[in-house]
Amino acid sequence: MTKPLRLNPDRLFPADNDTRQIARELYANIRDLPILSPHGHTDPSWFAENEAFSNPAALLIQPDHYVYRMLYSQGIALEDLGLKPAPGSSDRPVEEDPRKIWHIFAENYHLFAGTPTRMWHDHVYSEIFELDVELTAETADLYYDQIAECLSRDEFRPRALFDRFGIETIATTEDPLDPLDHHRQLKADGWGKKVITAFRPDNVCDPEYEGFADNIAALGKLTGEDVTVWSGYLNALRNRRAFFAEHGATSTDHGHPTAFTSNLSQDDTATLFERVRHGKANAQDSELFRGQMLTEMAKMSQADGLTMQIHPGSFRNHNATLFKQYGRDCGADIPMETGYVRQLQPLLDAVGNDPDLTIILFTLDETSYSRELAPLAGHYPALKLGPSWWFHDSPEGMRRFREQVTETAGFYNTVGFNDDTRAFLSIPARHDVARRMDCGFLARLVAEHRMDRDEAHQIAADLTYNLAKKAYRL
Amino acid sequence: MTKPLRLNPDRLFPADNDTRQIARELYANIRDLPILSPHGHTDPSWFAENEAFSNPAALLIQPDHYVYRMLYSQGIALEDLGLKPAPGSSDRPVEEDPRKIWHIFAENYHLFAGTPTRMWHDHVYSEIFELDVELTAETADLYYDQIAECLSRDEFRPRALFDRFGIETIATTEDPLDPLDHHRQLKADGWGKKVITAFRPDNVCDPEYEGFADNIAALGKLTGEDVTVWSGYLNALRNRRAFFAEHGATSTDHGHPTAFTSNLSQDDTATLFERVRHGKANAQDSELFRGQMLTEMAKMSQADGLTMQIHPGSFRNHNATLFKQYGRDCGADIPMETGYVRQLQPLLDAVGNDPDLTIILFTLDETSYSRELAPLAGHYPALKLGPSWWFHDSPEGMRRFREQVTETAGFYNTVGFNDDTRAFLSIPARHDVARRMDCGFLARLVAEHRMDRDEAHQIAADLTYNLAKKAYRL
Amino acid sequence: MTKPLRLNPDRLFPADNDTRQIARELYANIRDLPILSPHGHTDPSWFAENEAFSNPAALLIQPDHYVYRMLYSQGIALEDLGLKPAPGSSDRPVEEDPRKIWHIFAENYHLFAGTPTRMWHDHVYSEIFELDVELTAETADLYYDQIAECLSRDEFRPRALFDRFGIETIATTEDPLDPLDHHRQLKADGWGKKVITAFRPDNVCDPEYEGFADNIAALGKLTGEDVTVWSGYLNALRNRRAFFAEHGATSTDHGHPTAFTSNLSQDDTATLFERVRHGKANAQDSELFRGQMLTEMAKMSQADGLTMQIHPGSFRNHNATLFKQYGRDCGADIPMETGYVRQLQPLLDAVGNDPDLTIILFTLDETSYSRELAPLAGHYPALKLGPSWWFHDSPEGMRRFREQVTETAGFYNTVGFNDDTRAFLSIPARHDVARRMDCGFLARLVAEHRMDRDEAHQIAADLTYNLAKKAYRL
Repeated sequence: MTKPLRLNPDRLFPADNDTRQIARELYANIRDLPILSPHGHTDPSWFAENEAFSNPAALLIQPDHYVYRMLYSQGIALEDLGLKPAPGSSDRPVEEDPRKIWHIFAENYHLFAGTPTRMWHDHVYSEIFELDVELTAETADLYYDQIAECLSRDEFRPRALFDRFGIETIATTEDPLDPLDHHRQLKADGWGKKVITAFRPDNVCDPEYEGFADNIAALGKLTGEDVTVWSGYLNALRNRRAFFAEHGATSTDHGHPTAFTSNLSQDDTATLFERVRHGKANAQDSELFRGQMLTEMAKMSQADGLTMQIHPGSFRNHNATLFKQYGRDCGADIPMETGYVRQLQPLLDAVGNDPDLTIILFTLDETSYSRELAPLAGHYPALKLGPSWWFHDSPEGMRRFREQVTETAGFYNTVGFNDDTRAFLSIPARHDVARRMDCGFLARLVAEHRMDRDEAHQIAADLTYNLAKKAYRL
Repeated sequence: MTKPLRLNPDRLFPADNDTRQIARELYANIRDLPILSPHGHTDPSWFAENEAFSNPAALLIQPDHYVYRMLYSQGIALEDLGLKPAPGSSDRPVEEDPRKIWHIFAENYHLFAGTPTRMWHDHVYSEIFELDVELTAETADLYYDQIAECLSRDEFRPRALFDRFGIETIATTEDPLDPLDHHRQLKADGWGKKVITAFRPDNVCDPEYEGFADNIAALGKLTGEDVTVWSGYLNALRNRRAFFAEHGATSTDHGHPTAFTSNLSQDDTATLFERVRHGKANAQDSELFRGQMLTEMAKMSQADGLTMQIHPGSFRNHNATLFKQYGRDCGADIPMETGYVRQLQPLLDAVGNDPDLTIILFTLDETSYSRELAPLAGHYPALKLGPSWWFHDSPEGMRRFREQVTETAGFYNTVGFNDDTRAFLSIPARHDVARRMDCGFLARLVAEHRMDRDEAHQIAADLTYNLAKKAYRL
Repeated sequence: MTKPLRLNPDRLFPADNDTRQIARELYANIRDLPILSPHGHTDPSWFAENEAFSNPAALLIQPDHYVYRMLYSQGIALEDLGLKPAPGSSDRPVEEDPRKIWHIFAENYHLFAGTPTRMWHDHVYSEIFELDVELTAETADLYYDQIAECLSRDEFRPRALFDRFGIETIATTEDPLDPLDHHRQLKADGWGKKVITAFRPDNVCDPEYEGFADNIAALGKLTGEDVTVWSGYLNALRNRRAFFAEHGATSTDHGHPTAFTSNLSQDDTATLFERVRHGKANAQDSELFRGQMLTEMAKMSQADGLTMQIHPGSFRNHNATLFKQYGRDCGADIPMETGYVRQLQPLLDAVGNDPDLTIILFTLDETSYSRELAPLAGHYPALKLGPSWWFHDSPEGMRRFREQVTETAGFYNTVGFNDDTRAFLSIPARHDVARRMDCGFLARLVAEHRMDRDEAHQIAADLTYNLAKKAYRL
């Protein structure tokens, strides 16, 4: 017995009738605003080459770590989902048939009840692939066939979907060693304002990154700078930032384990760089160097105008067994307690009072919203708060963000929504969830007579579009 | 002027009418499911010997630390509640008259307004003792007499109440030195599947436990193993786990100050055990040993199939004065900040990828729900999350648990409800609160069109019965 | 186009109609109870001298750090708001025209949308100055003129406003070196029960306070005690506590960076005091000394009956640049993670079981509400919880406080509301917000059948008036 799949037009709005009516009105006004996606991880080759996506599993399951981490947590092997471990690291055969992989997903779709993954996927199925029954073991083949058929059509190629989704600008994320070939091609094609890059230098700024020494060497080769000395290393980074800016970048991004920063003398830093460059850094040196590089990057942002994003607080690759088999980003990153007050002080002391600089802070530690982040962003001119991130990019997570941040930092020290995804098809769904939740939050303020309706309309538009445009200089 | 006592059939459901109607429907379907109580602290002698309970104060006040901690916080001496301090540790006379103790409680019943204790007690009075006026100073005698009269009747003996409560299985908690005589008797009486034990080895695994060295010696005597060496100590524990399993145990339980784990080499552990056994362990050694024992216990669970529970994060016996007078569990345990990410990694590295193992994690630190526990349980096959615990086993606590856990871990990485109580009569009330709160949470998801009604019905049944049955292998 | 300014009579009540109706009834009963303001920072000279307030900017913008921190966060220089930096510390001219400052505020009033500052200010404009259009750039002059005109009238002088606000008692805060001249004058005028002082000894108890050594010397001179020895220092403090009590003080207040306490032997403390007094204390010594002084102060409270308040957890003067320019309290204090369990144990071990002592704990770290503070206050007879503080003195902050504290500590281990403000005109607004939020919280409990209506009425009155009166011995 199949059940209909139907996205309710009131989904995610508060249940109270009067409040819901206000949310509807607010949402109606901003629903169709263009999508700005200033931070994410889509693959620029999709838009540059505009090849058709290959199959439903490769498109919707294998790249989505929200999906496979949940399946894995319930005992389903990654090999059964077609994920290929490093050679020799696993005896289990890898499933090669995307239809079989799709069936496993369908049979376990109930696991996602109450999660954002469920909402995003239902949105994709209903709105993009026009499926009208729910995904279950029984409808798995129907789904597979209908999605596969769609993917064979031109209107489901990346650029067609991009336009259909109403995306105005999307930023991908590349490291400094990336030649940005796809972005060059996109620029040549007239898509240079639609798909831009962002500068993510972790692999040349974090001494504990795999291949750090080789990365530094490659950076020297690429820029012609003498990266064996501190000043040359900085110049090489400036050089690549300029190169990225030419390819559309308006922002940098920094994924550090903590929010620790430092502001050493240039002599001390040069000495530290020597240790780091020769692989003689201990854990404390590495943390100190990462912290120093945040401050250096902030100072470069003052010079070149790139907005700076800091994404701290993830314990990467927690599952050692999976890391050996699958490497980074295999779904075993776990948030950690993250402090900001003492940690950010050196950086803020250096640049925090500059109103022309924009530093966007994220957190995976919700306890910092009301205790640290809102008070900091509600004071320092350079600081803004990024939206609820990763595990917290969910209806309840978004609600907590607004409830815990707004009263101290207001709305105008925040920067709108980031989808932060590599799951391209889920982008409209994710923005829609954010728009609905923001309208629901504002509707409650209106219903409780804490804000008037006109002001709520203006703020809804700001949260959806204007704040991102301004903060990311789009 | 007495006020009527009436449990409203809609209690704890959301106030919004549409949402409430959904909650009612969900609850109607699961209200009468049997009670599984897989973790708690009732006394097995009650069910083995089936003696009548003695008096209202001894049944409802003196064993309930929720009750006496609140009264104590408002200046009422524990002696006045009939709690007996160690000889010579207090000059204050101990009240011996249960009726007088009952009066103190009644006069202070307003202190419990807004607390779960108030809801549990009102439920007991109304549903079990059929009292229909509120408890106040004026009705104290009426209460005392009516409860005392009930307790004298056969239908208020433990086994009759057990059946009347609809309990299918209850687990008590015993330490490895316990001979399990009552469980043997229960087995002989045909109650062996109704009342089972659980293996709680803190007193032989924690070097800081009172009497640790003597406990180890007793463990050796009981099992015939040579507990002066590491391998013999482990064998002795295996032996007692098997003994507990014969008496119905399907789980172990570990109440550690932190969630720290280690996975040392067997040589290093043997050396550490030597230090520990001779009382030469410092605080760091003790923590290391406890952490190692969690990993050892997890490995034994892989072998013998017992589900493992970890209850970390309580600062025990915070009030030194009361600890001297009353010993453990006198109401002065205070939760502490508790980290899981680094702490559990050694254990998870050893056993976390095993889908046939079940480790149930609890916390007293709600900040870990969305930041650490849900991401961990949403990834590792062996991990599941226990329900909101102790101070958080309350309507708001349950709501926070679901709101902060579900979006990342889903429902199926949780294990249903635990009452965790020694207050036998409150068990139906506690389960009823959990059922109502879960139905209210699901009703909100339905009302906000985040879940359909059929799915909510299925999940309500899973949260009430099926998940506990599976996780605890009942 | 100007919009009307109208305070909705239902503001802040829950949106659900039935719940709102209950909130209305509860609020109607307590709305007009007198204001007790047992902790705050108004200037006693206002009430002693009863001079007219000078101008709208000086009254409503310059002393309100909530206002200027938000404006500063959005790039507005403090000099432009008329705040005067230390001579030579800034090149930027200081705006001297209060009307121009008012215009900047008006143009940026939208920044405060969704913040408590917005609600407080609108309340002041509507209820005190009878303005009936919203504050915008267009209405800035209208506002300025009307407020300025009001301030010139006798009924807007401090004492007239005090009475109009229905304040029964207000406590200011003074340090031990203060001669309390204004309080003496107030006493002479018959206002000695209306305006009382509170004893805040941070400047003579915290070795890291600016001018500590000089302050100690001044304390010696003032009291005639030999403050070069530990016993004389303690006597000097006892002496000043008595002097403050004579001038109405019923409480002390302690603003420490952490909640750390110690209970050293008097010999060890005397030695520590020697180091501290000679400026030889390192950071650890200073923390130890502050911790010891909390215990000493608690013991003095046992002797003299002053209620003790502890306000820990603020990182003071985070912005070094602004601190150099503007000194303390310039809007750059940031909350920090704050632990209470181990930290308070020495103090609680010494005095926590004394039911005749009242220690009121505050926090800026909301994570401690359910994890540490409610369990501690729900156990120790001497402990009570202060209301949600500073950044959390807001509708959502108050809601979180009640939701996270009540189930474990109940209502009767809390102490009612503190406005904690130097913004005199906002006091009725702040108390009104607290009353509305408490009634809304109680209304939800009633609507969800977790409390009956009579009990909610009683508790509403207790939270509004009775608990503060009792805890602060007013």
